[in-house]
Amino acid sequence: MWIQPDEMIDRVTRAVMARLPVPATPRRLTVPIGVSVRHIHLCRAHVTTLFGEGHELRVFNELYQTGHYAAQEQLMVVGPRHAIERVRVLGPPRAYSQVELARTDAVAVGLDLPLATEGRDPESRAVTLVGPEGTVRLPGGSEGGAFIARRHVHLGVDDAAALGVAAGDLLDLEIGGPRPTTLHGVLVRVQAGWRPEVHLDTDEANACGVRTGQTATLIVPSGEGADHG
Amino acid sequence: MWIQPDEMIDRVTRAVMARLPVPATPRRLTVPIGVSVRHIHLCRAHVTTLFGEGHELRVFNELYQTGHYAAQEQLMVVGPRHAIERVRVLGPPRAYSQVELARTDAVAVGLDLPLATEGRDPESRAVTLVGPEGTVRLPGGSEGGAFIARRHVHLGVDDAAALGVAAGDLLDLEIGGPRPTTLHGVLVRVQAGWRPEVHLDTDEANACGVRTGQTATLIVPSGEGADHG
Repeated sequence: MWIQPDEMIDRVTRAVMARLPVPATPRRLTVPIGVSVRHIHLCRAHVTTLFGEGHELRVFNELYQTGHYAAQEQLMVVGPRHAIERVRVLGPPRAYSQVELARTDAVAVGLDLPLATEGRDPESRAVTLVGPEGTVRLPGGSEGGAFIARRHVHLGVDDAAALGVAAGDLLDLEIGGPRPTTLHGVLVRVQAGWRPEVHLDTDEANACGVRTGQTATLIVPSGEGADHG
Repeated sequence: MWIQPDEMIDRVTRAVMARLPVPATPRRLTVPIGVSVRHIHLCRAHVTTLFGEGHELRVFNELYQTGHYAAQEQLMVVGPRHAIERVRVLGPPRAYSQVELARTDAVAVGLDLPLATEGRDPESRAVTLVGPEGTVRLPGGSEGGAFIARRHVHLGVDDAAALGVAAGDLLDLEIGGPRPTTLHGVLVRVQAGWRPEVHLDTDEANACGVRTGQTATLIVPSGEGADHG
C-alpha cells in the first residue's frame, strides 16, 4: 500500500503527539481562608494564675473548627520593647501555653520570632503575659513560648485523600483580587473532623488583601503529594 | 512521488517540533527589595504648618533612589480609631502631601484605605497629621490623602527596555526563603536615572519574611510586555 509523503508526515506527527506526556492538570481545591489575628492559647494552670482560682474561659464566639472558640478573656503580651494590650485568648485550654503573633506584632513588641507550627518549637521565644489576677512568664523553647505561625491548611481525612496529600506536604495557595498572590509552602495538617480551612496571619492576609471567609485555590504543586495519590 | 527515508525522517521531525507548544523562557531580573515602612510625603506649605515658618526637612538617611531621603522629622498620624506616633517624613517635599500606610496600620488607625499608586487617587482618604508646631487635615481624594501603596518596581529606562516592559505593565515577583511567595501584579514604573528596586510595604515584607536589601526575581509573565519587546 502506498501513501503520499504529506499524508505520511501528518499521520506520523499525530502518532508522536499522541504519545507525548501531557502535563498533568494540577489538583485543586477551593478553600475558605481563616485569618488568625494575634492570639494566645493557655494551659489550665496559667488560666488560674492569670484569671484567678476556679476561673473557666468563657466563649466570645465559636471558631470555624468545631469545639474551638475565641474566649472573652484577653491579656497583655509584653515584650522587651513594647506591650500589646487586649490580645485574645482562644479556647479550650491546651496542654501548654503559647503566643502566636504576626511578624509586624513581633517587631512592635521587640521580639525576633521564629516561624514555627507550635509553641513548643525549640526556637520559640520567652514572653510575658499580664492578666487581671496575675502574670506569667512563658519560658520559650520546649516549654512553650511566642512564635509566628507557619501558613497551613486544615484538612479532614477524606479531603486529604481526595486531594492526594498527607500531613506535612507543602502546597500552593492562589489568591485573587486586588493584591493577587501565590503563597507557596502551605503546610498540610490532617485530623479527622476538621473542615478544610487555610490559616493565614494578619500580615499574610493584609499583604494579599483578603479577609476571613473569602476563598482561595489550594494547588498541589507537581512533585508534591504524588506518593500519597 | 518518492522521497529518501532520511529526508522523510527530517521532515516528520520538523513537523512535530513545529507543532509542539514551546514554553517561552520567561524574562527575569534579580532586583533588590526596598521595604516601605509607613511614611509621609509633605508639600512645602504643610512643612511650614507642621514644623514652623522657614523650617527645612533635615536628612536622617539617604534612600536607595538618588536624591530621596528619610527626614529626621516625624509626625503623628491620627485616624478615627487610633493614632500612630513617630511616622517618618520622606523628602524632598512634593507638590502635595500624602500618607502611605500598610493595611495593618490602616486597621489600627481605623481607616479603610484603597490600594493606589499616589495620594491624589480619588479614593484616597482624609487623615490628620499632628506636628510640633501645628496640625494639618489632608482632605483625601484628588487633593491628597492616605492610601495603601500598590506593590511596584522602579526601573530605569535601559532596564525596562532590556526586560522588554513599559510603565504600567504588571509583573510577578518570586521570593524565596522561609515564607516563599510569588507576588503577582507588580506595577512597573519607569524613570530615567532610577535604579531597579521593588517596593513592598511592611505587610508584604513580613508576610514573605524579607527585609530591605534582600533580592527577589522579577518575572515577565507570558502575555505581559510582549508588545514592548
